[in-house]
Amino acid sequence: MSDEYFMQQALKEAKKAQEKREVPIGAVVVMNEQIIGRGYNQVEMLNDCTAHAEMIALTAAFNYLGSKYLMDATLYVTLEPCFMCAGALYWSKIGRIVYGAEDEKNGYRRVAGERSPFHPKTKLESGLYGEESLKMVKEFFAARRK
Amino acid sequence: MSDEYFMQQALKEAKKAQEKREVPIGAVVVMNEQIIGRGYNQVEMLNDCTAHAEMIALTAAFNYLGSKYLMDATLYVTLEPCFMCAGALYWSKIGRIVYGAEDEKNGYRRVAGERSPFHPKTKLESGLYGEESLKMVKEFFAARRK
Repeated sequence: MSDEYFMQQALKEAKKAQEKREVPIGAVVVMNEQIIGRGYNQVEMLNDCTAHAEMIALTAAFNYLGSKYLMDATLYVTLEPCFMCAGALYWSKIGRIVYGAEDEKNGYRRVAGERSPFHPKTKLESGLYGEESLKMVKEFFAARRK
Repeated sequence: MSDEYFMQQALKEAKKAQEKREVPIGAVVVMNEQIIGRGYNQVEMLNDCTAHAEMIALTAAFNYLGSKYLMDATLYVTLEPCFMCAGALYWSKIGRIVYGAEDEKNGYRRVAGERSPFHPKTKLESGLYGEESLKMVKEFFAARRK
């Protein structure tokens, strides 16, 4: 199974958020080619500004594994993580992060700058289905401004 | 009710963590002189590296208020927040943060440096019962190394 396949699964999660009028962001955690955690943004639904897609997917993965570390897992998320989620990813020691679009406004680099907030062993990639991800987010905010 | 009183309550939460062999960190969220959220570090118990005292106290406060913002609230936490928790506090737009001891190793400044990760309107204070807080943490790690 490919990165493309798993990012499509993250986009499916984002679609679920969109259908519930949440900012459309989705994430999956994958280990041994298997999805062990899924999440989509639920900030409005839960009235909880920490209920980001990544946090929910990570907690699901911890619960599934009964482990608080994810060295052998990859997180796929449709948008660049904010620095709260970057912090959670740091603590998880996750093996690899693949994100779709960059988030200039709220991405972790706004605070971290050029410093990597992640664990030194965490691999980082970006851009996969970035256009699709950004299109969903932009459409969401355009519709909300109407 | 004073800052001292509420930081003592946060220290009580830290004590609960200590009794459960968790890193002893505690937090309370206060609004109108009332505690609306409590939390202590439960990383080991929940096998979830995001189960920090602040995250638990914040989520309790969101649930209590049915609101995802905490502009009129204060968070008291025994140790300097890590940058995951700093991110959560940013999103919450919390009015004020009072932390006890500084955390050179994992405090938010390790990544943020001189940039404030918090909301521009959030007031920040530190040092209240810092010695008591640090003593608990140091004793915990000293005992664990034995």
